[in-house]
Amino acid sequence: MQELSEQIHSLCQKAKEASRKLAEVPSKTIDQALMAIGEELLLQKKQVLAANEQDVDCAKNAGLSEAMIDRLYLGEKRFGALLKALEEIVYLPSPLGEVIEQWKRPNGLLIKKIRVPIGLIGIIYESRPNVTVDSSALCLKSGNAVILRGGKEAFNTNRVLVDSIRAGLKKAKVVEDAVVLIPTTDRQTIPILCSQKGLIDLLIPRGGKGLIETVVDHAKVPVIKHYQGICHVYVHSKASFEKALRIVLNAKCQRPAVCNAMETLLIDEEIAPDFLPLVVEELQKRGVEVRGDARCLNIVGNRITPAVEEDWATEYLDLILSVKIVKNLDEAIAHIHKYGSNHSDAIVTEESGAAEAFLHRVDSAAVYWNASTRFTDGFEFGFGAEIGISTDKIHSRGPMGLKELTTYKYIVYGNGQVRS
Amino acid sequence: MQELSEQIHSLCQKAKEASRKLAEVPSKTIDQALMAIGEELLLQKKQVLAANEQDVDCAKNAGLSEAMIDRLYLGEKRFGALLKALEEIVYLPSPLGEVIEQWKRPNGLLIKKIRVPIGLIGIIYESRPNVTVDSSALCLKSGNAVILRGGKEAFNTNRVLVDSIRAGLKKAKVVEDAVVLIPTTDRQTIPILCSQKGLIDLLIPRGGKGLIETVVDHAKVPVIKHYQGICHVYVHSKASFEKALRIVLNAKCQRPAVCNAMETLLIDEEIAPDFLPLVVEELQKRGVEVRGDARCLNIVGNRITPAVEEDWATEYLDLILSVKIVKNLDEAIAHIHKYGSNHSDAIVTEESGAAEAFLHRVDSAAVYWNASTRFTDGFEFGFGAEIGISTDKIHSRGPMGLKELTTYKYIVYGNGQVRS
Repeated sequence: MQELSEQIHSLCQKAKEASRKLAEVPSKTIDQALMAIGEELLLQKKQVLAANEQDVDCAKNAGLSEAMIDRLYLGEKRFGALLKALEEIVYLPSPLGEVIEQWKRPNGLLIKKIRVPIGLIGIIYESRPNVTVDSSALCLKSGNAVILRGGKEAFNTNRVLVDSIRAGLKKAKVVEDAVVLIPTTDRQTIPILCSQKGLIDLLIPRGGKGLIETVVDHAKVPVIKHYQGICHVYVHSKASFEKALRIVLNAKCQRPAVCNAMETLLIDEEIAPDFLPLVVEELQKRGVEVRGDARCLNIVGNRITPAVEEDWATEYLDLILSVKIVKNLDEAIAHIHKYGSNHSDAIVTEESGAAEAFLHRVDSAAVYWNASTRFTDGFEFGFGAEIGISTDKIHSRGPMGLKELTTYKYIVYGNGQVRS
Repeated sequence: MQELSEQIHSLCQKAKEASRKLAEVPSKTIDQALMAIGEELLLQKKQVLAANEQDVDCAKNAGLSEAMIDRLYLGEKRFGALLKALEEIVYLPSPLGEVIEQWKRPNGLLIKKIRVPIGLIGIIYESRPNVTVDSSALCLKSGNAVILRGGKEAFNTNRVLVDSIRAGLKKAKVVEDAVVLIPTTDRQTIPILCSQKGLIDLLIPRGGKGLIETVVDHAKVPVIKHYQGICHVYVHSKASFEKALRIVLNAKCQRPAVCNAMETLLIDEEIAPDFLPLVVEELQKRGVEVRGDARCLNIVGNRITPAVEEDWATEYLDLILSVKIVKNLDEAIAHIHKYGSNHSDAIVTEESGAAEAFLHRVDSAAVYWNASTRFTDGFEFGFGAEIGISTDKIHSRGPMGLKELTTYKYIVYGNGQVRS
């Protein structure tokens, strides 16, 4: 434990040192390094896929679930997608060097607020090996060094991937320690990483509820949580049924396992007798299990199952939907504030007053009028990339692209000014 | 403990609920509430000062230091200053409602990124009672509810102050629970406040090293640290001695007890034999104790005392200065990165190349060329207010004014769009 602690501390020191050097590397050189990383990965493809097979075999022997093994599995096709994603990051504009604001003070001081990298970012994640390449590329592109702690199931894959990444950095003459993999997946590495005060500038946990809670409970460095998405669609009394149906079905069924999928549907009581039977039928056609409150059951009877208190606070990530009938906008918003996760919520209505009230009052990273919650995504927002979706309220909310992986500093030009 | 925990949790729930209501209050009404708070404070002046006398008497009986008692003491004059500061906040422009960016996506979605309050902010502070009014006013002005945990020495004063603030809110028909004081200063209140996940959106500890470390060690909610300022002035070989002297004396002596005062002076070896004796003489005239490295001692002998390793990492907040002779810019920057606190650092030079290298490479919230570090301040930067100076790297760095007490959200306008 003492030894592990020292080992990780020393890796963080190296990566921090690398972050200082990286901050001075021109954007062009960083892009060259990203291209070199792509080349190295291609060269090492066989080794990567072999290591991945080894991980998958271990996972099978350990009796992990199919879903888990699927997340772990790379294969030719996903490896190609990973390289393509990397290439796309190369061609994104660099977020660095921007003068965000500048102004002159009456005493002659010129103050420039400039965009700079955050420094050293720690990423703690689970079994998907593409996160290794993706996170490294996004951090590098935004000028940050990164220390990675991947899931133990993907350890062999990650090791080969990070070797290739570091080989690419070396080839481009960029400091290799800008990307560091914790060389063990001992459970103690998480609390140790979480306490690297003064070294890790930001910790981003990417994974399930359990992982994020562990990180938050141990963190003594700043964390931005990419926590659960308990997203709501609220069908207002003045909704177009056609739009409402389309949006509800998309938000629930198009990809139920992701954080921006809808988990709870709220329906105004005025239209519930007409709308609920329609939507339940369409949902059930698509294999969705509907759990409704007592008023829903009154309307559609035992075609659906009763929802319990816990349902309103559950991120199913599955073809399950909780449905509640509300009196009005106020009750809908109160429900969202009580059970939601500040992620993404939508109103469907043709009445602009109700829409504006909803958009301004609901305290979520992204609020939608007549559109699916599924759009909360760095690519859909036009950022060209995404490291995740923040559910915290400071620094960045919603999709985090390259700009959200930067911070700022003030550069002040004087000619001898002192304070009186 | 269980009871205290429930009590604080319930107060946070009330304050969170109030933050939702406050987010809908027009800026004008908030300004009216701030004015009403000023009137209430003036009406309650006698009671405030009497409560403060009681606190000061207790502190004297408990044998607290003069400095501590001075921080605690309010009196007529400081009470007047407190009211004036409040009035100035009223007349600042509201940071809310700004559309930071907006763009249209190819699918027709209109995305607006708008500035909104953070929500519920927790302030944990020490003995200065003016922080109670100041923090409340800044949080209210930026649309946030606030939960306050002041020092136990100032408890009676704080209670009367918060009663007045809440009376002002009531008068202006603004939700009173937008400002809540933890009604006990039991030491357990800090860890309890630090763990109000989902209720406190941001915790700002304002105080000494010990307080901030306690908060960081217990925090399970986002924190922005206003930590120490180990600020450096680096006198480069091509410095104007006149500017260097002026800046060094200002940065060290004008107000040594604050975080943006200089703690370490770095001097290029090329000019040290000429500059060091000059600066030591002037510093000593002003009562500064100078602690130098071995090379300094070689130049000025026993006129100064030797610095030990610990000195480089110490925030003296006093008329003490550590001085080190460095080979060049690289060594100066390496020293700052090793011992500094990412707060404020300055270079004095007439050579623009060296200046630009320093400004871009030094990883601090504010970096100065030929100006005193003492300018790192919300008022000096022109923000018109300041809740403190962040030494963290995410959300906000350096002086935090009203804008830094806000965040953003995305409002998305569609006409039925779904994701394919």
